[in-house]
Order: sequence, then C-alpha cells, then structure tokens
Amino acid sequence: MTRRLRLGVVGLSRAFTLMLPTLAGHRRVELVACADPRPEARARFTRDFPGSRAHADIAALCRDGAVEAIYVATPHQYHAADVIAASAAGKHCLVEKPMAITLDDCAAMIEAADRAGVQLVIGHSHSQDGPVLAARRLVASGTHGRVRLITALTYTDFLYRPRRPEELDTARGGGVVFSQGAHQLDVVRLLGGGLLRSIRAQCFGWDAGRPTEGAYAAFLQFADGATATLTYSGHGRYDSDELMGWVGELGQARDPDAYGTARRALAGITDEEAAKARRAYGPDTPPLAPPAAPAFHNQFGFLLASCERADLRLTPEGVMVHTDDRRWLEPAPLPEVPRGEVLDEFCAAVLDGIPPLHSGAWGMATLEACLAVLESARSGRDVTLSHQIAVPG
Amino acid sequence: MTRRLRLGVVGLSRAFTLMLPTLAGHRRVELVACADPRPEARARFTRDFPGSRAHADIAALCRDGAVEAIYVATPHQYHAADVIAASAAGKHCLVEKPMAITLDDCAAMIEAADRAGVQLVIGHSHSQDGPVLAARRLVASGTHGRVRLITALTYTDFLYRPRRPEELDTARGGGVVFSQGAHQLDVVRLLGGGLLRSIRAQCFGWDAGRPTEGAYAAFLQFADGATATLTYSGHGRYDSDELMGWVGELGQARDPDAYGTARRALAGITDEEAAKARRAYGPDTPPLAPPAAPAFHNQFGFLLASCERADLRLTPEGVMVHTDDRRWLEPAPLPEVPRGEVLDEFCAAVLDGIPPLHSGAWGMATLEACLAVLESARSGRDVTLSHQIAVPG
Repeated sequence: MTRRLRLGVVGLSRAFTLMLPTLAGHRRVELVACADPRPEARARFTRDFPGSRAHADIAALCRDGAVEAIYVATPHQYHAADVIAASAAGKHCLVEKPMAITLDDCAAMIEAADRAGVQLVIGHSHSQDGPVLAARRLVASGTHGRVRLITALTYTDFLYRPRRPEELDTARGGGVVFSQGAHQLDVVRLLGGGLLRSIRAQCFGWDAGRPTEGAYAAFLQFADGATATLTYSGHGRYDSDELMGWVGELGQARDPDAYGTARRALAGITDEEAAKARRAYGPDTPPLAPPAAPAFHNQFGFLLASCERADLRLTPEGVMVHTDDRRWLEPAPLPEVPRGEVLDEFCAAVLDGIPPLHSGAWGMATLEACLAVLESARSGRDVTLSHQIAVPG
Repeated sequence: MTRRLRLGVVGLSRAFTLMLPTLAGHRRVELVACADPRPEARARFTRDFPGSRAHADIAALCRDGAVEAIYVATPHQYHAADVIAASAAGKHCLVEKPMAITLDDCAAMIEAADRAGVQLVIGHSHSQDGPVLAARRLVASGTHGRVRLITALTYTDFLYRPRRPEELDTARGGGVVFSQGAHQLDVVRLLGGGLLRSIRAQCFGWDAGRPTEGAYAAFLQFADGATATLTYSGHGRYDSDELMGWVGELGQARDPDAYGTARRALAGITDEEAAKARRAYGPDTPPLAPPAAPAFHNQFGFLLASCERADLRLTPEGVMVHTDDRRWLEPAPLPEVPRGEVLDEFCAAVLDGIPPLHSGAWGMATLEACLAVLESARSGRDVTLSHQIAVPG
C-alpha cells in the first residue's frame, strides 16, 4: 500500500492545472514525467517536479520506461489516440472527462486497454466527489430503499470562461452537454444505478457569440423505473452555488456579492485563445502550494435523490438524509487533498487490483447519455440507450 | 370600483378555511351567504358574518337573490354540478382548483357559464401569487426575451395532512398530481406562455398506506420550444421551503428545526376523517382575526425561469432578476390580505369586465396537463396536448 504510482501526464492543460494540487499532494502518486508541445510548460513542470522528465509528445512519453501510468488531459479530440498509444506501451490510463466525443472512440479505447491488460479509468468526474460516493454507499446499503426520483440542477458561468474555438463547437466536443453533462449525467447515473433506458431532452444557446449548447434540460428514465430530471445552464446568470451555501465547484468559499465576474473578465479580453492558454499550466501558474486539507468537498450543484424511505440531499459536507422522522448530516470524509478520490480510485485499480467504478465501459455509457441529450434535442423524441452498464459492485 | 361583490360560498371546507382571511378581509368582497350540510359550520358562519344567510345545499344558495357570485369550495367531484347549478341561476363562479377531474366536466362547466353569460374563474392557484404575476409581467414586457427553460421543484408533507378517503384515491381526484400539480403546472404554464405541446412524466407513491401519487417528475415541451422540468414530492421528507428562506406556502415563517411534524401528528390520530373534518370550517376554527397585511407572499417552491437574456427566480418577496451584468430583486407588491390576488382577478372580471387570466378554458388546459402527467406515467410515452390556450392579453 505504500508504493507510489509513477505517473506521467500528457497535456499540461487547464484540466491539469485543476488537478495539480491533487496530483502533487496525493500520497499514492508520484508525477515523474509529462508531455506537452509548449516548451514553457515543460520547463515549469521540471522545475515544479525535480527529477521529472519533460517530453514533447505522447510518443516520447510512452517510451519513458519510468512511467507506469498516464493521465490524459489533452483536448477531448485527442483522448482516443492518446489512450491507444499509452495502452500499446503498457501504461495504465486515467482519462479526463469526457472520455471522448464518439462511441466508436470509446469502444476503441476500451479495446486497446483490454488488449494490453492495462487499467482505464475516467476522471476527474464530480461523481467522484466525496458526498456523491457517500450517497452511493447509502443507496447500496439498501437501508433507505431504492432510488426512485432524482432532481439535479446546476447553473454556472461555464460559457464565459475563456475558451478555445473547438470548445464552442459542438461538432468538435464543445458546449455544456459534452463538458458539463459529463459531470451531471455521471453523478445521476451513479446514484440511479447506471442503467438508463431513455432520455428526453432539450438544448439551448442564448448567445450567438458562443454558438454551442449553453443549457439543457433532460428527463431520464432508468431501466428499473427510476426517473431523473436535470437542468444545466452555463450562461453566467443564476448561480446554483447559492443553493450550496456559496461553496464553489472546487470546494472554495464564494463571495455571494460577486456577480457577473466571468462575463466582465471575458469582455475585457481581446485574444480569448491567448487568455485560455494562460489558464493552462505554464509560467503564469501560481506557485505550487504545500498540499492543504480542503474545508469542503467539490460540488456540482443541487441534487436531491428520493429513495423509497428517505430523501438524500448532497451538500459540500456530505449527505443530508431526510427520513420519515428525522434529518441528519451523513458526513463524507474529506480527502487529504482536493479531488483525492479520483486518484484513490485509479491507484486502487492499478496497485490493488480493485475494479474501478469509472471504468472505460462506465465512461462510454455516460458519453452515450450526453449524445442522447443532443440527439433528443434535435429530434424532439425519446432516445433509447443501448450501451449502459450498472454501477459495479 | 367601490361596490363590493356579494359572494356566497358552497363548501365550508379546508380550502374555505385557507381562503377565509382573504374572503373576510378583501375590500371588494362581501360574504353574504354559505351552503354546507354541516349545521355546526353554518352556525359558525352566521356568527362570523353577521347578517349572512346559511343554506343547507347549493340549490338553496342558488335561490338566494342577494348572492351575485359563488365561491365553489366543495370536494373536486362536486365542482361541475355546483358550477352548472350556479351558472343556471345567473351566479358568477370562482372555483377551487383543480377545476374538475375530467375534461368533459370542464367543458360542461365552461359551456354552462358561457350560456348563462357569467364569469368562471379558477382559483386560488399559486399562479395567482404576487411573485408569479410579477414574473409574468416581466416576461410579457419582452425586456428579457422569451422564456426558454423553466425548472420547478416542490417538496412538501402534502401526503401526511389528514385526508378524506377520496383524497387518497386517484380515480376520485386524489393524489398530488390533481391537487398539487394543479398549482405547479399552472404556475409553469403561466410563465411559459400557456401552450403546452407534450408532456413526459413519471409518478410515484412510496407509502402503501397512502395508495395514490405522492410524487411526480415531468418534462414539458411548449409549442414555441420552451421546456420545463418539474419535480414534486409530498412525502414529508425533504422540504423545499428550505430553498425559500423557510417561508412557508402561505407566506408564514417556518421553524427550520421542526421536522416530520405532519407525519407525527397523523400517527397520533385514530380517526383521520374526523381529523380532516376538524380542519374544515366549524367550531374548532380559530377566531377570525382582523385582516393583517402579510409579510411575505404565498410561495410554491423553487422556480427558476431562464429567458433569453435573464434568469428569473421567484422568491417570497418578488422576482430575483439575473441579467448579464447585475442581479436585483423586482419586488412584487404585497396584497392587502393574503391571497388577495385571486379576488382581485375575480372582482375585476365580474365588476370591471376585465377578462381573467384563470378562465375556465385556462383551468381546463391545466387539468389537461395534470391528466397528461398521469397518462404519461402509465404509458411511458410522450402525451400530446390538444386543449391548451395561450396566456390571455
């Protein structure tokens, strides 16, 4: 249990920056190498991680014999090729969400990992947040009966954070369904048992300057009769952190009086792609802080799961359980480092042989749900799903 | 404008008790008569309203020449017969929700009122709450663009308030879809423009001892592409007043620490029907208080309506408007008496000739939506609607 997994990362992106405290502070992981085309990012990496090696591309990273596993944090469209290359080199893979943007790519990734006998785990997903996992354990215990009705709503400023052009192009994996549905649908699938039967949905975009999905609403039917309604908007108006005690997505304290900051910041930017690049890892990244224990969990908006005998509400501290006669907080243990749960799951899979919840097949099923939201919005009809898997274990 | 409408009431029920402060305190209404089979309720009525007349049945009330209009607060199944009788006698009708439990009954009520040339208004509905009407005015102004996406969620202890047997029997109009969907769907229709195209829904009941719908989830598609997701549970576990600053449905201050009170009270009751009867008007009704201005509006749970250029959140004080650059409360004027808006609308229709929002045709369209929720839950399919009308004016 004390050995550390020697991890390489491909793509020193914004996603990597968000995972940096986790990767740097997790006690079962050692960051030993990276691959990125930007020399300034590579230089920063070797400075932050003395003794590590910085490669210019995935091929070189795959040849690095010290690397046991690769965290794939490249843009969506590269995930499949990166996983196939890494698997062929015998590296285990942790892949940022969304796993890919086509089911064919997902299938190819799963096949590549299976053939090579390496682990394939998808994350970070907010379904790895401590309170979601705690709720899942409560559901699995059977104490409160089956989950029957889930309602989830998330309102953010996602659309107004600096974006690369493809992030605003649905055909290339842009928009809130691929990027944020990958979280919300993943959380709802995990709590609802995984096996979706059909999805009815509508998508919206109210800003011609951001020509992709900015919002969606969806009605999910599970095979066992459970139902979920989901609403998401990334238009930077209402903010559902209001419903979470002004704790933000990353577990940080939010200022309730700050309003419209993302839109204002974006309006002041002339070169959005350059601004996005500055949010990636590099010279402008704040110095690596010593790992600090978080005060709250990550959270992804309001979620209430009604079981036959209790309503479970997620909070940034755990699960508020509402039974017939009383209500209490079931605290979720805080990870040692923020988002530590994703590396817990990945290391348990690679080092301990414990099958992951967020396997390739699981990620493919969540992508199928994202694609079904888009398809139902186009057709105005129910979309039947056929690649769903149950929550393992 | 100063003349008062001479109103009779049929059914000194729980609904009447809830409307009592409104009826007693509204400056455009004078309660002059009632009809109810219970002598103790009639005695109380003539004591509370000196000079009024108490009749044993609707026929006698209809013969009362002093009565210009009748508030129909009988159980659902009597609404149609009562309205038809009242209309034939030339009395205007204000009918408690749900208007009826079949579309045929609704059509017969509308035809009877039309033939007699009397007004037919449906209420109280929470879509008459001040903040809903304020949001409707904001939408109608066009300032914020069209409504595109509505999300509504309401969690109460509805199922555990004392009930008559038919209130727990869907076939006789029982359950939360008829009684509470009549509010939530009405609010959503009003804000979404009225013209629903289809509904996909699921219903639930998690208590074999209360064998009717206790919860539902619904996905509503409007003809103009607007979409709404609705969730309701009356199982007495999670309470959505938590999201409304612990202001209750009637605008009252709630105690956040009180939990499970409805279930506990019900468990202590041996004769539920008698307990329900005690909640109706009669000797046990608290003394009529002098009309007091309410501190908050009535409210019916969390509701967020996303327009093309702003998100509108209902609060017990008005509408919180979230535009691109700022957020503010658009206060809704408090009525002089709680729920005064329903009598404002009825009196404006009868005394001033202003067409009501909540006409018979409007109420029929909302009932059609309730029936579609039940039908979709049975069939697992979209139900197409055909009796919808647009918001007047």
